[in-house]
Amino acid sequence: MSTGLRLFDLAGADDDLRFSPNCWRTRLALAHKGLPVETIAWRFTEKDAIAKSGQGKVPVLVVGDRWLCESWDIAEYLEDAHPDRPSLFGCPQGRATARFVNQWASEVLHPAVARVVVPEIPAALHEKDREYFRRTREAAFGQTFEAIAAERDEALVALDRTLAPLRSTLAHQPYVAGAAPAYADHAVFGAFQWARVISPAKLTAAGDPISSWVARMLDAYGGLARTAKRMMSSLPRS
Amino acid sequence: MSTGLRLFDLAGADDDLRFSPNCWRTRLALAHKGLPVETIAWRFTEKDAIAKSGQGKVPVLVVGDRWLCESWDIAEYLEDAHPDRPSLFGCPQGRATARFVNQWASEVLHPAVARVVVPEIPAALHEKDREYFRRTREAAFGQTFEAIAAERDEALVALDRTLAPLRSTLAHQPYVAGAAPAYADHAVFGAFQWARVISPAKLTAAGDPISSWVARMLDAYGGLARTAKRMMSSLPRS
Repeated sequence: MSTGLRLFDLAGADDDLRFSPNCWRTRLALAHKGLPVETIAWRFTEKDAIAKSGQGKVPVLVVGDRWLCESWDIAEYLEDAHPDRPSLFGCPQGRATARFVNQWASEVLHPAVARVVVPEIPAALHEKDREYFRRTREAAFGQTFEAIAAERDEALVALDRTLAPLRSTLAHQPYVAGAAPAYADHAVFGAFQWARVISPAKLTAAGDPISSWVARMLDAYGGLARTAKRMMSSLPRS
Repeated sequence: MSTGLRLFDLAGADDDLRFSPNCWRTRLALAHKGLPVETIAWRFTEKDAIAKSGQGKVPVLVVGDRWLCESWDIAEYLEDAHPDRPSLFGCPQGRATARFVNQWASEVLHPAVARVVVPEIPAALHEKDREYFRRTREAAFGQTFEAIAAERDEALVALDRTLAPLRSTLAHQPYVAGAAPAYADHAVFGAFQWARVISPAKLTAAGDPISSWVARMLDAYGGLARTAKRMMSSLPRS
């Protein structure tokens, strides 16, 4: 079935290296809804290509003449436009509560994972993105990449602490959304897929309930996330 | 309607001073379900009174000959035992996702609020609880209450950072659970009611979406939380 959906999806130097945590949220939400999508490799500096979205970041989903942005807003759009397909939220309470999970992932988890993986990103980027990426991210962190890289061990310890509520939740249930994955999972898993595509870093240990959940999320939707190209393709796949 | 429910509820020296964040979760969940309950003032050292629950902490809800403990498990029990009454979760996805919110509140929010209010708790306690409380809490924090109190300004700054995902969620919707309060709100609000009953500390500023939500939660269920006795009863009620 062709739905004519097009997704601008952050790519590295290699068109197939797709590493944005926010774009992965949208990829998984589209797969959950069973909606095929044409993904378009996009680089940080290609602002003109997505100007019709009214801003400069991806994901940008093009549906006919609508240009949608912000991963959360795209998820709500998909849920409302396709109520007949598997639900991303289950019910209004599920949607509202998934919003909290989404905000936690964006505001707490992403910065904690970034401190582990950001210094590895420039090597994956298209030449034309490297200066932009370093300048904007070093300004955001208030540190050079070299300084961030030097604190990697501390960042892994801090990340482990940050993961506590996710860990205890997944000790009680197979997915954040319960018995099966849904948007609350997509919102969180994006960060794990980001790290997996870009970095050899192990964010969680074997035996951690989060590790088992990551494995299940990699297998979900026909292995969409597991089969994605990785930067370190010579490493054993986990 | 008498349901015969009895709740062991943490109290201070004054029987009416009820300040446990976990007990407040249960009080609000019972109110949400429209279930009257007899609350029993309980002190930390009265372990014998709740021995039938198989552990030593409150809330403990007695339903006939069942002794239920752990605020989350009690909420699931209430939802399953009273499916005809207003739902605490909305749907299975809502329940699973509320679990994450609950874990975040217990593991991240409670410790952050504790650093602000714990040194004020001994003054509210029954004489017989004071030594137990100080000994167990100082061991948990690895600091004396005096040392914690000396870091109160830093604790308020850290709490403000901790509240980020709650703040951005409530900037988009009136309650964590969406259009109306439900268990995801009870799970988080317990910590705010804890601080309100025990301490004059202001956790959030006027104009913060969290402050407006706290006000709505105080008014919910006939003002159950707003009318609760406070330690600083001479202060203006907020």
